[in-house]
Amino acid sequence: MVLELDGDGPRYAQITRAIMSSIEDGLLAPGTRVPGTRELARALGCSRNIVLLAYEQLALEGYLVGRSKKGTFVSPDLPRPGQARRPAHAAAPRLASSLSRRGRRLATFAAEARLITLGVRGMRIDFMYGNCEPDEQLAVRLRAGFAKALRLHAFGYIDPAGDAGLRAQVAERLRGARGIVRSPEQIVITSGAQQALDLCSRLLVGEGDRVIVEEPGYAAARASFEAAGGVIVPVRVDRDGLDVAALPQDNRSIRLVYVTPSHQFPTGAVMSAARRHALLAWAARRGACVLEDDYDGELRYAGRPIKALAAQDGADHVIYCGTFSKSMFPSLRLGYLAFPEWLARDGVSAKWLTDRGSSALMQFPVRELMASGEYDRHIRRMHRRYASRRSALVQALRTYLGSEVVIAGDGAGLHLVAWTPRLDAAQVDAVVAAAQRRGIGVYSITPHAVHALPVQGLMLGYGLVDVDRIHEGIDGLAAAFREVTGTTRLRPSRTRENSRARA
Amino acid sequence: MVLELDGDGPRYAQITRAIMSSIEDGLLAPGTRVPGTRELARALGCSRNIVLLAYEQLALEGYLVGRSKKGTFVSPDLPRPGQARRPAHAAAPRLASSLSRRGRRLATFAAEARLITLGVRGMRIDFMYGNCEPDEQLAVRLRAGFAKALRLHAFGYIDPAGDAGLRAQVAERLRGARGIVRSPEQIVITSGAQQALDLCSRLLVGEGDRVIVEEPGYAAARASFEAAGGVIVPVRVDRDGLDVAALPQDNRSIRLVYVTPSHQFPTGAVMSAARRHALLAWAARRGACVLEDDYDGELRYAGRPIKALAAQDGADHVIYCGTFSKSMFPSLRLGYLAFPEWLARDGVSAKWLTDRGSSALMQFPVRELMASGEYDRHIRRMHRRYASRRSALVQALRTYLGSEVVIAGDGAGLHLVAWTPRLDAAQVDAVVAAAQRRGIGVYSITPHAVHALPVQGLMLGYGLVDVDRIHEGIDGLAAAFREVTGTTRLRPSRTRENSRARA
Repeated sequence: MVLELDGDGPRYAQITRAIMSSIEDGLLAPGTRVPGTRELARALGCSRNIVLLAYEQLALEGYLVGRSKKGTFVSPDLPRPGQARRPAHAAAPRLASSLSRRGRRLATFAAEARLITLGVRGMRIDFMYGNCEPDEQLAVRLRAGFAKALRLHAFGYIDPAGDAGLRAQVAERLRGARGIVRSPEQIVITSGAQQALDLCSRLLVGEGDRVIVEEPGYAAARASFEAAGGVIVPVRVDRDGLDVAALPQDNRSIRLVYVTPSHQFPTGAVMSAARRHALLAWAARRGACVLEDDYDGELRYAGRPIKALAAQDGADHVIYCGTFSKSMFPSLRLGYLAFPEWLARDGVSAKWLTDRGSSALMQFPVRELMASGEYDRHIRRMHRRYASRRSALVQALRTYLGSEVVIAGDGAGLHLVAWTPRLDAAQVDAVVAAAQRRGIGVYSITPHAVHALPVQGLMLGYGLVDVDRIHEGIDGLAAAFREVTGTTRLRPSRTRENSRARA
Repeated sequence: MVLELDGDGPRYAQITRAIMSSIEDGLLAPGTRVPGTRELARALGCSRNIVLLAYEQLALEGYLVGRSKKGTFVSPDLPRPGQARRPAHAAAPRLASSLSRRGRRLATFAAEARLITLGVRGMRIDFMYGNCEPDEQLAVRLRAGFAKALRLHAFGYIDPAGDAGLRAQVAERLRGARGIVRSPEQIVITSGAQQALDLCSRLLVGEGDRVIVEEPGYAAARASFEAAGGVIVPVRVDRDGLDVAALPQDNRSIRLVYVTPSHQFPTGAVMSAARRHALLAWAARRGACVLEDDYDGELRYAGRPIKALAAQDGADHVIYCGTFSKSMFPSLRLGYLAFPEWLARDGVSAKWLTDRGSSALMQFPVRELMASGEYDRHIRRMHRRYASRRSALVQALRTYLGSEVVIAGDGAGLHLVAWTPRLDAAQVDAVVAAAQRRGIGVYSITPHAVHALPVQGLMLGYGLVDVDRIHEGIDGLAAAFREVTGTTRLRPSRTRENSRARA
């Protein structure tokens, strides 16, 4: 099967369109077997997940049918070419095409990014990044806080900016922990960081506006800017974070710069102080806003904390975004934006229009946790927990994978990167698949890059893996490496008992 | 002060601009006193809230200063005309103007609609519509459900479409209670109805697309369509709901029709069966989607329930939207969309991009309530509670206000309308203000209309007022009427003891 991709939009949509055309043009006759997803992914040089998504879409629209174990086929019920038309059970074309231009973008970019950030279900040991769980002590406090909120009748709509007490707590913590001086009136409580990014996209990014993102960078943020009509300008990241010298120097305007300076996503690099200053100066000179996503800024293991960009914001142009998803856990669905003064009121309006404000019932317990000092204690406990997992993970990677991987980004947060300089992209995909077959969830860094990366790598999160499972998990990952590379470079697998004993 | 409004955008923004120009043109010198909000509202024939919002905005930008009790003044610190410039403490113009076009709309329309739908805080007896509280039995169940969710570790991200069990429950209930046959895969759990409307706007409404709304109609829905770039086409509502004969008959395309057929917001009219059929046929003929907002469809006191539009949707073009904010309470922040099949997948993508999905921790207890039958029992209890409040309210209105008001829209839901054929718009605003001074929250219907209404009216919600406070509240409202109209048409106020005895 020869597929010509048109280069327009996300790759999964390109593949979907290319196969559709092949079928409609008669190149793929009804009943023909199409290549397996792994095979096609290799041929196209993309991740297998992208192909899976395209096939799923084509099956949904009636172009392909899967026959278990026999493979995937062009639907035999399709009309022969000449009489070509869309399958009858697809929606009436007039209605199906009635998404707005923005709606189409929303649908396609989100579908791709969603796949990347949700991980794979049912893994025995899951190194999914960006996910974590609280301990029993926090759960007990939350239960009590929720009961109290019900007793106090927190049933109605509140200020769309969020619970006043929680906003005051957040403002105070930003001042104390991150050096950011913003008033509670500049804080908007959001439903997690994703909504914070979405609100900023909708407020600031218009059709054709250029947005600087890190390369590699957070795919879901990119999707949010693209859905708003933004044109993505990726700027490379190295050991010191965003390479400020590589920022565009032409005269075309830049609307927004999106950065993760404290623990760059996905590489984990910490942006150097010199670059922070240079970035702020560059953005101020050009009248661009800076969106600082400090998604796991509460967790730092090495070196002294570096000031947030928003703490050095002389030009009043940094929007700061934080979340409780990493410091506590994701299903709270609470994050926050600290706006410059001129944007705060508009930010509240946008939040109101989006969902009338986040739940009072959820904000109240979090306010109580912060006010009582329990949040601080939780952060300290989690800091110890994650620091020991991180050490175990680094040790296990050295033990089982040795020079196969180069560890980076382990100074902060909830994940690190194991770069794999000896593997190409297809091999990394194969390692990921082989590990997943063993029930071990590991994830390629590739989907977070716009262009091909010079070196491939794996993202290893430790928010969900207890310290005593880490060796077992990395032992399994090493087995997946051996399966793919056929190499004897790696030590033979230890017995489970041994790896437990080490942990 | 002579103000010329430019007719562009929301009225509060027009007023803001007009006053700004007057100041910058030197017509209003620094230090001059501007009219009071009530006075200006009367002069402009608009609600006082609109003027309040404009003044607040002007104060924020440094054009006006309030001196307590003395009134509001043009800021004396402003430069004299000739040297006119924006006040120094307003944001740097380059940054201040860096909202995108969509962002500006988001900010202005939301600011206006927000004012309308949040009500006034601190009322002793608040007839705010769209708000309600659960009883103790439900609170107990919720507390237990939340504790169980924590025990089961519902801490992570889930399917952005929502908890699978909750979606199954919603699909089953829609089938049983509303005759709507849609699968759980077509359901997307949202953060309340506002997010549901916002998702539909973003998916379907593009720049310049025409959207039909009811006139009068829900201001927050209108704001959502306008923020997406939609052009609002208001179509009048009468006793039988949307007047289908008044729908545009020209050839210009219509993207979306937004309707509240079960209990029209704000008039409370129930759409007749004949009109439902006619509307569906009209929309199908033109390839328009219908967005059916069934915000309080669970509560019906008179007549047999009429089929939802989505239950008669032969053309697969009705999007159904429901919420738990009325059947339970608003701070759950949970609602749902039932999409036609062709749109469901895109709806999930849009939801993902917006906030990665609503909280698992909140969805779980609601699923448990529905699965155990407790939700049904709660609806039945609330039905009895609201039915008796509604009777008391109708009786009190007849007793204290007699022929001053014409009651309508009391067959369903959580509010009714008291039309005031003898009062003009300014008098209604004055009655609202006089009642609020007495600690009684009542609300004008006017802000929900695009054009001036032929008859004015008050919206009276009974979600927050116990049956034994209703007479007292309406007694106070009658006193406000007397204060404004100076009429002796109304019976003298009863003593509080007497009104309690009646209730």
